Amino acid sequence: MPDEMQRALIRSRGDTGGCRPLEACMSEPCNQVVGILGTGDFSRSLARRLLASGCHVVVGSRTPKRFVTLFPEEAEVTSQLEAASQADLVFVAIFPEHHSTLLELKPALAGKTLVDVSNGLHVKRGGPSHAERLADMFPESHVVKGFNTISAWVLQTGPRDGSRQVFLCSDSSNAKSSVMVLCRRMGFCPVDMGLLSSSVEVENLPLYLFPSWGTPILITLILFFFFYLYNFVHDVLHPFVKEGKNVFYKMPIETINVTLPSVALVMLSLVYMPGLCAAVLQLRWGTKYNRFPDWLDKWLIKRKQFGLCSFLCAAMHAIYSLCLPMRQSARYRLLNAAFKQVQEGVENSWSDKGVWRMELYLSVGIMALGMLSLLAITSLPSVADSINWREFSFIQSTLGHCALTMATIHTLLFGWDRAFDPARYHFFLPPTFVMVLILPITVLLGRLTLLLPCMAHRLRQIRRGRERSRHIRFTLPSDGYYNGLDDVSNV
Amino acid sequence: MPDEMQRALIRSRGDTGGCRPLEACMSEPCNQVVGILGTGDFSRSLARRLLASGCHVVVGSRTPKRFVTLFPEEAEVTSQLEAASQADLVFVAIFPEHHSTLLELKPALAGKTLVDVSNGLHVKRGGPSHAERLADMFPESHVVKGFNTISAWVLQTGPRDGSRQVFLCSDSSNAKSSVMVLCRRMGFCPVDMGLLSSSVEVENLPLYLFPSWGTPILITLILFFFFYLYNFVHDVLHPFVKEGKNVFYKMPIETINVTLPSVALVMLSLVYMPGLCAAVLQLRWGTKYNRFPDWLDKWLIKRKQFGLCSFLCAAMHAIYSLCLPMRQSARYRLLNAAFKQVQEGVENSWSDKGVWRMELYLSVGIMALGMLSLLAITSLPSVADSINWREFSFIQSTLGHCALTMATIHTLLFGWDRAFDPARYHFFLPPTFVMVLILPITVLLGRLTLLLPCMAHRLRQIRRGRERSRHIRFTLPSDGYYNGLDDVSNV
Amino acid sequence: MPDEMQRALIRSRGDTGGCRPLEACMSEPCNQVVGILGTGDFSRSLARRLLASGCHVVVGSRTPKRFVTLFPEEAEVTSQLEAASQADLVFVAIFPEHHSTLLELKPALAGKTLVDVSNGLHVKRGGPSHAERLADMFPESHVVKGFNTISAWVLQTGPRDGSRQVFLCSDSSNAKSSVMVLCRRMGFCPVDMGLLSSSVEVENLPLYLFPSWGTPILITLILFFFFYLYNFVHDVLHPFVKEGKNVFYKMPIETINVTLPSVALVMLSLVYMPGLCAAVLQLRWGTKYNRFPDWLDKWLIKRKQFGLCSFLCAAMHAIYSLCLPMRQSARYRLLNAAFKQVQEGVENSWSDKGVWRMELYLSVGIMALGMLSLLAITSLPSVADSINWREFSFIQSTLGHCALTMATIHTLLFGWDRAFDPARYHFFLPPTFVMVLILPITVLLGRLTLLLPCMAHRLRQIRRGRERSRHIRFTLPSDGYYNGLDDVSNV
Repeated sequence: MPDEMQRALIRSRGDTGGCRPLEACMSEPCNQVVGILGTGDFSRSLARRLLASGCHVVVGSRTPKRFVTLFPEEAEVTSQLEAASQADLVFVAIFPEHHSTLLELKPALAGKTLVDVSNGLHVKRGGPSHAERLADMFPESHVVKGFNTISAWVLQTGPRDGSRQVFLCSDSSNAKSSVMVLCRRMGFCPVDMGLLSSSVEVENLPLYLFPSWGTPILITLILFFFFYLYNFVHDVLHPFVKEGKNVFYKMPIETINVTLPSVALVMLSLVYMPGLCAAVLQLRWGTKYNRFPDWLDKWLIKRKQFGLCSFLCAAMHAIYSLCLPMRQSARYRLLNAAFKQVQEGVENSWSDKGVWRMELYLSVGIMALGMLSLLAITSLPSVADSINWREFSFIQSTLGHCALTMATIHTLLFGWDRAFDPARYHFFLPPTFVMVLILPITVLLGRLTLLLPCMAHRLRQIRRGRERSRHIRFTLPSDGYYNGLDDVSNV
Repeated sequence: MPDEMQRALIRSRGDTGGCRPLEACMSEPCNQVVGILGTGDFSRSLARRLLASGCHVVVGSRTPKRFVTLFPEEAEVTSQLEAASQADLVFVAIFPEHHSTLLELKPALAGKTLVDVSNGLHVKRGGPSHAERLADMFPESHVVKGFNTISAWVLQTGPRDGSRQVFLCSDSSNAKSSVMVLCRRMGFCPVDMGLLSSSVEVENLPLYLFPSWGTPILITLILFFFFYLYNFVHDVLHPFVKEGKNVFYKMPIETINVTLPSVALVMLSLVYMPGLCAAVLQLRWGTKYNRFPDWLDKWLIKRKQFGLCSFLCAAMHAIYSLCLPMRQSARYRLLNAAFKQVQEGVENSWSDKGVWRMELYLSVGIMALGMLSLLAITSLPSVADSINWREFSFIQSTLGHCALTMATIHTLLFGWDRAFDPARYHFFLPPTFVMVLILPITVLLGRLTLLLPCMAHRLRQIRRGRERSRHIRFTLPSDGYYNGLDDVSNV
Repeated sequence: MPDEMQRALIRSRGDTGGCRPLEACMSEPCNQVVGILGTGDFSRSLARRLLASGCHVVVGSRTPKRFVTLFPEEAEVTSQLEAASQADLVFVAIFPEHHSTLLELKPALAGKTLVDVSNGLHVKRGGPSHAERLADMFPESHVVKGFNTISAWVLQTGPRDGSRQVFLCSDSSNAKSSVMVLCRRMGFCPVDMGLLSSSVEVENLPLYLFPSWGTPILITLILFFFFYLYNFVHDVLHPFVKEGKNVFYKMPIETINVTLPSVALVMLSLVYMPGLCAAVLQLRWGTKYNRFPDWLDKWLIKRKQFGLCSFLCAAMHAIYSLCLPMRQSARYRLLNAAFKQVQEGVENSWSDKGVWRMELYLSVGIMALGMLSLLAITSLPSVADSINWREFSFIQSTLGHCALTMATIHTLLFGWDRAFDPARYHFFLPPTFVMVLILPITVLLGRLTLLLPCMAHRLRQIRRGRERSRHIRFTLPSDGYYNGLDDVSNV
């Protein structure tokens, strides 16, 4: 479901060929001759955008006649040698394994700027990059690495907010700055990544797969399997071993439905834990100018991902819970209970305690889910961009702590007095909710402690740049923006 | 719920009048005299933005005194003739049916650039556009069509990402390029649409109503009505005709709830069908350089829309299903079943098979829905913009096929062994799920075949630009970006 | 869950220090010496972005040696006096309460441009702003207020769509325009806010907390409490007082679940009410050139917020409703009903009327919720930006009225014939749904009246700029865009 494609279509109705007009974001003609070696999709899209930016484009191909029809009329499609000779700046839009086929162009390319747009197939941890190898092959040319993070689609449809950055690196600063100028002319925003040795990193950029999600998802999965196993032993295996009751049918839904909220609550408290740690460290240090330990920095940075994983689990828990009464097993149990009630002649089986407990924990749970949904919506990029910092901090910190409190109350109400019922301690294991509650209650108590006037005052002073020993040492910039990381959690 | 309005408010608190400061994205004054004929809201917003861009603005009105207070002080509001004489570039912000009232200004407008910002009321398939008619009326002026896709609100609040493009066309390239410069000065991004003959298309642009959604919604509706009718005959009409049982009450919920998942599953397999077709074609051709047939191109481009329609149906199906146990009819059936159980003295009505079947298909169904939700969230423009191509392709292809597999298993589990139960073949019609499963199972088997090492290797070679006859013919740009369409479905 | 942080990480893998390369959106070097007084996070981020923009940066600190390591190598960290002397443009990145410590730099700062980036702690209604006080302290310098809405994070990660605007004000137009140039060089978009007296407003900007949401949320809460109390008296207190029945257990779920849809429906009709008022006023005036009363303008502008509040209530109502059958109380009531049915020997308790009523109102309710969800999704900034005005108006007006109609039918079906049942009038209070229906039915009838050919024709003429007395008075710009506010509601 590629969004870019749909947009392309919207703008170019009735145009099946591909001669769609491009944004011409520069009016004055560029008059620069730009060469492109290679005739693939990327090459074609690049040619079109360069033409739209007012450049003169020469495409070099081994079989120019075959490809001349695939390029816009304004582009000159010729032999590789011809293209290399005419242009001062040459894009190498060729698979890296075929770079060596260009060696015959060496004299023609000497002294010119070569832009390597190639990508690797796998993330590389070191070793020479494609661009470095190209530079070794053409020592007399100035190799610039870049444009590899830009897709053919973005070239065609015009740069959008999330994809405007073009990462460039080169050992020749002249070559790099000429590519930067061209880059800006095409509507992109060049980002200088330094020397060509950074090209390994630049080539890795488009190959990363949700790098910031790795740890949060891993922790979610570990918690899920741990709690699933625990609940399986506690709720399914125990009755089978002790009483011979076969309740294995609980595995696909009921066990998952006890596991999911446990994961959700633990993950949610992990969102607010690092802010607490940071505040405690700052209080102990008496200054905010010490660097946090590395693990804390990384944790602070991944709070959003933790929160979204928690929300996903909470939402799944809601759907699983809502499914409970529609199951065949619920129906059978109800029918059997009705049979039993009739047999025993109990006219009214109403138990006020059970009713109140459930009404309360359902209601609180729904509110917690509602707040988590607001948090999740606010972390959508476009929504987050349209609110100011104070609003963002209000939502993520104030509302977030409310959601954590509600979720904790939801779990406490679910537990009710069962935590003190020895019959619930199967195999001497406490019920799940007892274990799950430890972390959120710790976080909430810690946060409450920090809200005590004496602590809050101390912390505010530290955050405003005062240090323990000296009263006013030096001054700091505008309040409210001084420390992004802390502000969010209102530490 | 217009977003623009809220933003306008945020930026202009305590400003009810409308003298809100505008972004002045150009510092150096423009010193150009720009005329505007007409005094409506568009004209007023245009005047304000032109002033903010540093231009001198002259507004021409038939009754200048009446309107002078509606414009900012810096704008000169005068007679139409005066405005036409002073300015070199004149915006015609007048309803097209009144263009002829400007004929008296003909001498004053001769040799000048007229920008026609008018829109039509209906999509035109041909015939002269408003701009072409204006050009006929003023043969000595240079008519440029443009700005008609920009709303008064965007002019006031400043251009945003989705609305920065201004489509321009004109027969005079000088006039067009001067409007382009002005356009950029105002913070917009001009898009050259060629000669004035394109103005019909430009005038149609703001009149299109979700053009890319037409086919997918139509197919969804057709499928919905077909399956609804089928289910009605199968589940409601058959018992009425054969046994005289009145179950027409099933029509509003139960029949819809069997129809929705059928539509959802068929639509979801239609998302992954065209990628399969493309791969098969490329394998047969032995090259990726043949153009796909037109229908396949169109289908590939609309996969996102198909997917979102499928998700909508799936989500509605979830809500309908969750509603089932709260219905009065479910209650009555349960009560009657309890009565019957008591009458028959059955202490335990438990049936392990029924329980397992339902627990499993519910659990799998919820997971399928969860994955579809992730897919839907990733197709939000702002989320899609913030992930790289590999991440996008992972979500849409890998996760998408997982979701399809889960949904198919959900349906298989729902069917269980009923497909082989002759009693289910009412009027010789198979149960719905049998028909629904054909397409997704075909797609999944096809995809599995393509994953076979020999096929996968072949395909990878073709995608990297090799052809059947020659070994290495020519070279292609960076892997992973060479073909947007194919990559997404990981064909 | 700060989005900015995650993005920063994505772009700067393997970079824990903070020497992340910044977008260098200007190639030609700036050659300007920019001073920064203060060494906090904002100062550091500012220094980095200025360096990336090609400026020469001099940071002034009281203890330069201590902070030199926190700044990039290219920045010169020196004494405050030194920095103030070298630079022509000095950023004052110091807490406002310490501005007075700069008085010793007075001679060095004379004639220079001071940019005050400080923020207040609370919204100020008047009185001198920090910038005005700074200007009083340094009468010989040119104070410019600005950059206070930009966070350190945005400076580091590069400006994004929602955060590109920099609001500037100053009494010196030269100073202001030099800051504007610098601002643009840094990739931001300066917005001229006029004289320094506007600085109170500029300092308030980042302190506002969802200003456009105040009224809608207040109205939602008032409606909620009113309906909750009403339902409590009607459904809980009445049976307790009259029959001594204890149904207080209904308070956490059932009473809330009757309250939420009432609020949702009233709020939804409040979305479409102001458009109706506007149309009626225009019809009465016979012209669209009269200004709407202030309350109507404000209401029109807040329709989006009303709609989203309504959607939130509707979604919560859906979840609460789906929870109903899983409650212990529902189980007990069912068991008791089964017992009673067995005791009374009723084999079949089926009541066709009850079944049909519920099936219908559930189905219609789900459809209403589905439409409201589409409306809510379309009001996400990124989705709203990617559709044209006609599509936006179709969704918000046509689909919105459909949703209102569906929701009204849902409530009517829920009410069925109970509105005429005297037994439902507890304490002479009508059932809630009777009260709730007044507003939406008024809106829908009003809208239908406006659709009558004579009315619709009149209104269309008025909207196209004709007035009652004269036939064609003056002309107006392109149809469809002439009036953003009205168009949305298709008045």
